[in-house]
Amino acid sequence: MIMMTQHSIDAFLDRLASGDPTPGGGSAAAVMGAAGAALVSMVCNVSIGKKGCEAAEPELRAVLEQSERLRRRLQAMVEDDVSAFDGLMAAYKRPKTTEDEKAKRADAIQASLARATQVPLDCARACGEVIELSRRAGEHGYRHVISDAGVGVSAAYAALRSAALNVFINAPALKDRAFAARTVDEIETLLRRSAAASEAVYSLVRGRLAG
Amino acid sequence: MIMMTQHSIDAFLDRLASGDPTPGGGSAAAVMGAAGAALVSMVCNVSIGKKGCEAAEPELRAVLEQSERLRRRLQAMVEDDVSAFDGLMAAYKRPKTTEDEKAKRADAIQASLARATQVPLDCARACGEVIELSRRAGEHGYRHVISDAGVGVSAAYAALRSAALNVFINAPALKDRAFAARTVDEIETLLRRSAAASEAVYSLVRGRLAG
Repeated sequence: MIMMTQHSIDAFLDRLASGDPTPGGGSAAAVMGAAGAALVSMVCNVSIGKKGCEAAEPELRAVLEQSERLRRRLQAMVEDDVSAFDGLMAAYKRPKTTEDEKAKRADAIQASLARATQVPLDCARACGEVIELSRRAGEHGYRHVISDAGVGVSAAYAALRSAALNVFINAPALKDRAFAARTVDEIETLLRRSAAASEAVYSLVRGRLAG
Repeated sequence: MIMMTQHSIDAFLDRLASGDPTPGGGSAAAVMGAAGAALVSMVCNVSIGKKGCEAAEPELRAVLEQSERLRRRLQAMVEDDVSAFDGLMAAYKRPKTTEDEKAKRADAIQASLARATQVPLDCARACGEVIELSRRAGEHGYRHVISDAGVGVSAAYAALRSAALNVFINAPALKDRAFAARTVDEIETLLRRSAAASEAVYSLVRGRLAG
């Protein structure tokens, strides 16, 4: 078995478009988040060493270290999402004839649902961090590559909204209501903050392009 | 030379993150748009044949045909964006010693700029169509796969906004002011309409998930 991100883009998109349950929206979200992080890294990599960016170089290096760390995490989440979904499907297919089987199946479903809620929550959190990094890259990056910070923030925000949908699907079925409520609360806060933050970065980039 | 979309996702993201000028935000936009189209296709492919979706089947088949056509176009645009950008860089690097060289260089730059404006315009148009298809998939698709329409619309909208930035970069340097003005006008209209349309689809999907 090769990892999902070892497939070519063409092959990944063919699988995404197919009627197979995985990869689905959760994996697409992680890919978009990773692309957002990669674009923040690109802005830093192009800007470091460019004339006019000298003063911002320590800041750009700090952003780059974090964006590459987040990119690695998000690339790994593409696979995590597939295994979380497959795990949930396998739990639902467990035998349920005897009382013992029913109890074990219910436990397996709850454990899988918790993972299928946690993975998109982690994805959304990472994307929130990418949005914040894209602001710093957009403020300090070399003007000729600044549009990539605007693409990066758009990708990260789309990924965050996408991950949120997977939390909204899975959280209602969780028996651990405290974890479900905490998670939905955190996602709602992330959605609200990231809407304003990503608009601000996009406007900043448009402004720097025009000026 | 292999095509950009024949690279693995890991390799594409490594190249995106690097300091090399291509692939950049334009290619990332086309990949996101293609992922949006693929997710619309997935909703249709899963829903067709499902109990409760019988009445919507002709509609879902029509959406699928269009989403797959748009996906193929957007996947091809990943490469188009790279060649448009490389063409522009090559034009700027042409010799400019004699008057004849200067004139030929200026013509080459204008031709390359026109292409580097047209490719993201086409990308934004295709993404606008994907957003409209995601609405139809979100309305008629099987409820258990409906979140993928919400991820699809988020990806397509991010791609449209990203493509718009590349139009805003290149249009100001065009000597054909009529083409530049027409293009910027069209992009502004696409941005305005797609903001409202994509929010409506996302809300529709959240509503169907909750109910």
